[in-house]
Amino acid sequence: MTAWWDAEPARPDAAAARDATTRQARLTKPPGSLGRLEPLVIRLAALQGRVRPQVDTVWIAVFAGDHGVAAEGVSAFPQAVTGEILRNFARGGAAISVLARALDARLEVVDLGTVNDIGPMPAVRRARIATSTANFCSQPAMSDEQLAAALQAGADSVAAARQAGAQLYIGGEMGIGNTTAAAALASALLRQPPEWLVGAGTGLDAQGVAHKAAVIARALAWHAGDHAPMEWLRRLGGFEIAALAGACLAAAHAGIPVLVDGFIVSVAALVAVRLQPGVREWLLFSHRSQENGHGAVLDTLGAEPLLDLGLRLGEASGAALAVPLLRMACTLHAQMATFEEAGVSEA
Amino acid sequence: MTAWWDAEPARPDAAAARDATTRQARLTKPPGSLGRLEPLVIRLAALQGRVRPQVDTVWIAVFAGDHGVAAEGVSAFPQAVTGEILRNFARGGAAISVLARALDARLEVVDLGTVNDIGPMPAVRRARIATSTANFCSQPAMSDEQLAAALQAGADSVAAARQAGAQLYIGGEMGIGNTTAAAALASALLRQPPEWLVGAGTGLDAQGVAHKAAVIARALAWHAGDHAPMEWLRRLGGFEIAALAGACLAAAHAGIPVLVDGFIVSVAALVAVRLQPGVREWLLFSHRSQENGHGAVLDTLGAEPLLDLGLRLGEASGAALAVPLLRMACTLHAQMATFEEAGVSEA
Repeated sequence: MTAWWDAEPARPDAAAARDATTRQARLTKPPGSLGRLEPLVIRLAALQGRVRPQVDTVWIAVFAGDHGVAAEGVSAFPQAVTGEILRNFARGGAAISVLARALDARLEVVDLGTVNDIGPMPAVRRARIATSTANFCSQPAMSDEQLAAALQAGADSVAAARQAGAQLYIGGEMGIGNTTAAAALASALLRQPPEWLVGAGTGLDAQGVAHKAAVIARALAWHAGDHAPMEWLRRLGGFEIAALAGACLAAAHAGIPVLVDGFIVSVAALVAVRLQPGVREWLLFSHRSQENGHGAVLDTLGAEPLLDLGLRLGEASGAALAVPLLRMACTLHAQMATFEEAGVSEA
Repeated sequence: MTAWWDAEPARPDAAAARDATTRQARLTKPPGSLGRLEPLVIRLAALQGRVRPQVDTVWIAVFAGDHGVAAEGVSAFPQAVTGEILRNFARGGAAISVLARALDARLEVVDLGTVNDIGPMPAVRRARIATSTANFCSQPAMSDEQLAAALQAGADSVAAARQAGAQLYIGGEMGIGNTTAAAALASALLRQPPEWLVGAGTGLDAQGVAHKAAVIARALAWHAGDHAPMEWLRRLGGFEIAALAGACLAAAHAGIPVLVDGFIVSVAALVAVRLQPGVREWLLFSHRSQENGHGAVLDTLGAEPLLDLGLRLGEASGAALAVPLLRMACTLHAQMATFEEAGVSEA
């Protein structure tokens, strides 16, 4: 049986890219002088199939979930925080709440399962799979059914975004322990030792980081084997990481560009790309996180993020911060005069 | 006689910085997780003297002027372009016109003197000093009177910005030949050979860049001597570069933060800082330009720009592109919930 995520991604529009390239060359500026904004807008043209792309309508989904591996003492914050911050999203006090308002973006918050259940709240979609994943040190983090439900939660989010006419999809995450899950998954997929990929997360000291690497090493020994990417995701991922992988796959199927946030979302994107290499075309990368393992994941994906501001908050906040650059690239491309229109001499 | 630019810069407000630091530490995020946005907003608090700074009201001034050294064949574009692009600014078709509209910023365009005089236009302030500076290969670029007029044009712009309640001042430039003037000035001030500081400007090839360095080397030999920064500015600068130096000085006197654009504006800022070290406190740096000499100037100023996008357009465009980051840093700082407000547990 073929799963929905095995479908082929959409293909970018080469003709739109060609026409956008022609237009760029006619704008009143030295060719290339807008640097990385020029290829950026041409790629957006290809992804949206229009010579003058737009990112006015932005969908931001933040997926929250708890992690069994938190029991190993891998986070600076207690596990109750996942639910508490979920409530903070709903009430509009979190960083991503503030940024979504500032960008006039739609913010969807999805509860995939927390130990501290905050109950129904108006601004939170409840799609709780369990109170937490299992501790992956000595068992798979998820069952097959749980993995499928999490992937589907991502696809559902993309379907809602598409319905709302989103021109850009952003996924974010929140969950105490999830840099540990992401580092474990990256370690398995990149075949690099966990010491290379673990970081401070929400604020571990050097001893805490070393402990985190040891916990992952123990888990990797338990799960040893040549598993497929989806199976690694099931064994070491989390509900929100799987939802993000599902969202990348679904957005690529639907032909919606994705602006990737930091380390954890990049690891989810890597799973999606390993499964379907054509997903890569739909991914734009927003920022280089301060989290240690991000560089290796970006390198593997051949990604050069737009921003490098030492961010390590998650919640899609880094991607949100890059949205104005995409918007201004589009506005410059659409509104600047050409040499002919302006009567300006050329080189 | 003391000139206006010899006055002492204003002092940032240490109490506001302290209070902003306290507030940052209480916001619902791991401490430090917003990376460079955290010290940025604290610095803005100090510069604006308020715990919750704002950059809603932004003034963008673009100074245009022609350069005698263009006669040496140092640009990929003909000199007529300075006037033509000035007209493009006025008609709203240039990159900075589009960006200023997108940011709802006030755009002031100042004509300091072009060979191709476009005549009076509604959106252009005429402050023409001459049709061009002199060719600095064998004479000073400006007379004392011309230098003073150009510095004053910068101060006048800051006075208008202050009158309009600007919370942030951005200066930009346009002028065929002005990367040559800026590289010459940087070479003199940094005591580095011109080959290290010249770049492609609007699009020279390797041979053109080598020629540009040779032209500057010849000029530096002619001007050899241990001149003061203002005298170097007079000898090697341009009307727009002097106006930008004047604007940095005037903004520091008035206590208005300046967001510095690329290579040429950074060289103007360096002149201002060499004259009055206290100016440095008022300067924020927006982007690392692709122009070769920018890195050395930034290093000397101890500046770490926010963006690195390979831009090399000038016109204040790089600074404009960084404005949303400043705005979002301020909005996050002002609107995020504290741990107490949100009832979130701490590390």
